[in-house]
This record gives sequence, structure tokens and C-alpha cells, in this order.
Amino acid sequence: MDKWDYRCLLEVRDYEIDMQGIVHHSVYINYLEYCRNVYVRTLGVDIHEYHSMGYDLVIMSLEQNYKAPLHPGDKFYVTVRMSREGRLKIIFDQEIRLEKNDSLVLAAKAVSICVNAKTGKPCMPDVLENVFDR
Amino acid sequence: MDKWDYRCLLEVRDYEIDMQGIVHHSVYINYLEYCRNVYVRTLGVDIHEYHSMGYDLVIMSLEQNYKAPLHPGDKFYVTVRMSREGRLKIIFDQEIRLEKNDSLVLAAKAVSICVNAKTGKPCMPDVLENVFDR
Amino acid sequence: MDKWDYRCLLEVRDYEIDMQGIVHHSVYINYLEYCRNVYVRTLGVDIHEYHSMGYDLVIMSLEQNYKAPLHPGDKFYVTVRMSREGRLKIIFDQEIRLEKNDSLVLAAKAVSICVNAKTGKPCMPDVLENVFDR
Amino acid sequence: MDKWDYRCLLEVRDYEIDMQGIVHHSVYINYLEYCRNVYVRTLGVDIHEYHSMGYDLVIMSLEQNYKAPLHPGDKFYVTVRMSREGRLKIIFDQEIRLEKNDSLVLAAKAVSICVNAKTGKPCMPDVLENVFDR
Repeated sequence: MDKWDYRCLLEVRDYEIDMQGIVHHSVYINYLEYCRNVYVRTLGVDIHEYHSMGYDLVIMSLEQNYKAPLHPGDKFYVTVRMSREGRLKIIFDQEIRLEKNDSLVLAAKAVSICVNAKTGKPCMPDVLENVFDR
Repeated sequence: MDKWDYRCLLEVRDYEIDMQGIVHHSVYINYLEYCRNVYVRTLGVDIHEYHSMGYDLVIMSLEQNYKAPLHPGDKFYVTVRMSREGRLKIIFDQEIRLEKNDSLVLAAKAVSICVNAKTGKPCMPDVLENVFDR
Repeated sequence: MDKWDYRCLLEVRDYEIDMQGIVHHSVYINYLEYCRNVYVRTLGVDIHEYHSMGYDLVIMSLEQNYKAPLHPGDKFYVTVRMSREGRLKIIFDQEIRLEKNDSLVLAAKAVSICVNAKTGKPCMPDVLENVFDR
Repeated sequence: MDKWDYRCLLEVRDYEIDMQGIVHHSVYINYLEYCRNVYVRTLGVDIHEYHSMGYDLVIMSLEQNYKAPLHPGDKFYVTVRMSREGRLKIIFDQEIRLEKNDSLVLAAKAVSICVNAKTGKPCMPDVLENVFDR
């Protein structure tokens, strides 16, 4: 069994580097989101389509453990493993690792829910429920 | 006793808004950093000066609990309370609240250490130690 | 006569600094947008309200002349002067200057039009026309 | 003869989308920079190495003509053609086009110079001069 459901290969871009010469710690949030969104799209969940259907997938909590910095030019991969907690919570366990030696750069956990864009109330629409039923 | 050591007043900028019409969840990381850096500067800790002295304050871990979104034009404040854990870890407990009614937008905790920029080794230089001795 | 219609005071935030130790050149685009949007709001043009009315103000062209860099902690102001070209184009002449000595940091010119969000066609709705009639 | 010296293939990432549902106009600046930096690296010019040698390549001016917006999921390419003006100026003519039909998204021109990082004075170090002599 794989340790992840999906992974993306990415490369550090110079505009992501901060004054310490490493990737700024807020940029990892974008890497993580990118990988989650690409992954759920492979499952048929397009967050833009959901948005126009009146649903938004929102982040309830996010924690990042920074293990080692990324430097200019580094190639790395972002992984994601999705699970469910209770009826409404969707958990994404994620990692970022250097491509060249698999060393750990960041470990993260995102907790997400689907909300009705109008009311802001949590919900689990059938289209999303079906993703977990497979 | 105050619930925080310091707070900054800020306002949402339009370029921080995402396709859901709310502040993108990565932007809060920048708000939190801004408040921490302004605060430690009031204590005499200038991270740019530290950087040229060969020390970098780095984030080891960061967790955010998103309670409510920020919208275009919202005025809010970011708070910070600093404490120490062991000899090397510096803990920042932070909140973001709407200015108009103090309702909670985000609760966060950052764990930071000082590292020698050349070796990457954790350290606690005297100039930083002195901040806690006061 | 003033050299500008409006100006905003801002301060460099550390997360805007790049690996050269200065504000990254893309960040100025955000400063310029911020000032334009705050200014047009004082004229009764709220771009979020316009968006929900079905109109988007979009940038057709933007040019920036970088005269001097901004550094960590710098306080600066952004100015804007609005004019009209033909029936549809809205011109924003803008500058960024250091607060302490008014020295020029950046000169910019943005050309904007209003488009129908559905069709993408340029338009000049009455609510916007009225702004120029005053 | 090719119309460009180099091109990069990229894809829109969701975090680059603004409240209008399109790529925010400041993000293109990053796409352009990314392509320039990757390109000059193929010529042996590593801006990080230059920085540690005491030279910074800085942008003097940048102009963007926005022709059509990029949407979530769009695949596009960024092109660059480099030329020289006088002894010190390096000109980058750039375009962004949709991959699927080559339609123009953005045309841009960047004027860059090399400066001595300490003095801020323009210069043309031999290592850079050699790039043009080839």
C-alpha cells in the first residue's frame, strides 16, 4: 500500500524565495493547496465547478511542521492522503519531500469541510459523498 | 492582565481576496508574521539586523484554526503573546479578530527557533536571551 | 492644483522582501491596485459591488518604471491621478514615493476598462459614467 | 528564425485566481520573471550565484499589455527574446499564450540592468558580457 494517494512534482520558483534565501514559509500553503486541488480533481471534484454549484470546500484548520528549507532550484514533490472524520470532515495528510533524496521538508495536516456558499453552513452534498463511497 | 503582549490593526486588501470572495487561507500566514515581526522589533529584535549578524529566526511549526473568513474591506487586528519553551523554543500564540465586534477569525500558534545562518544549528544568542531576561 | 487625486500611506511588510533584500518587483503591482481601489471607493465605485452587479474593472495595460528599491521597514505613499481617454478607457497615473524625503521609488501608468462580466465586452455603465460627470 | 529564444510551459494554479475568477494581474509578473530566470540560467547566468558574487540583475521598467485573462486550469507558455540596448541595458520581449490555440494572453517588455549589490551602480561584469559575445 502506498503511503499517499497522490503526489505532484514541483520546482521552487525564484519569486518564492525570501530574504533568508529560502522559500518563504507561507508559500508551502500554496504548494499544499495545489496538490490537494489537483488530486480531488482526479476524483471528479472540481472546486470551481462546486463553487458555481453553490458549494465551497473550506479549510478549517491547517498545521505545518517545517523540517528543512527549500532552496532556489530545488525539485520536490507534494503528497496527499485523504480520509474522512465523522460525517463532514475531510482530512488531508500531506508531506513535501526533496525529489533527489526523499528527505522530508514539511509535514502537514489540513482539515476541510464543504459549506453552502450562501448560508456558510457545513454540508456533504451527494456529489462529494459519492467520492467517498467508491 | 492583557490577553496579549501586542496587537496590530490591519485592513483586508483586495489583492488578498480569492475566487471564493474571501481572504485566501495562505494570506493569514503573512498577517501573523507581520504582527510577530513588528512586535519583536518593539523588544529590540530586528530580524533583518539579526540576519546580517548571522542569525535567522525560523518557524518550526505553525498551526492555524480558521474560525470565520475575512471579507473585502474588513478591518481586523492580529494579536501575539510570546513565551518560551525549554532553552531554545519561542512560542507565539496569536489571534485574528474583527475590529468591529472582536469576533474570532483565526487562532494560531507558531513555534520558532533561532538558527546560525551558516550552520543551520539552533542557538540562543545573548542578544535574544536578554529579551527574555527582562 | 495637487499633483495627484489621492494618496495612501503604506509600510513595507517583511513578507514582501525578496532574496535581494528589497521589495520584490511584483509587489508594487499590489500597492498600485490597493491605492486605485481605495481611491475609486471614495468616489462611490466599489469594485466588489460592481462585480455583483455584473461589471468588472479590468486592467488593459500597466507599465512600471522602477526608480529606487523599497527596503524592509520603509514607509511610503502611493498616489493616483485618474483621467479618461475616449469613451471607455480610464487612465491611472501613479507614483510611489518614500515618505521621509518624497524621493521617487516608482512611476506607473495603468489603463483600465469596465467590462460586462458575462460577455467580456467593454462598457461604460451609467454608475461609472456619473463618476466622471461630477 | 524563431520568434523567441526560449519558452516555458506552465499551468494556472488555483491560488493565483482572484475574486473575478481569473488570474490576478500581478501574478503574470511572476510568470514572466520565472521564464526569464530559467532562460538566462540556460545561458550560464544564475542570478543566485550572481547575487553571492555581488551582482544583482534588477528590473528598470516593465510593461504588460493584458490581451485576455487566464482561467483556472489553463495551460500556457511564456516566451522570452533577449536583446541588448547600449552597453548596459538588457531587453526581454515576452509573451504569454494559451497552449491549446496559441492565442495571445499578454505581451510584455522588461528592461533590466546589472548592478553592483553594494554600491547600487550599474555595471556589466565580464561573466555577463560573455553571454552576449557568444
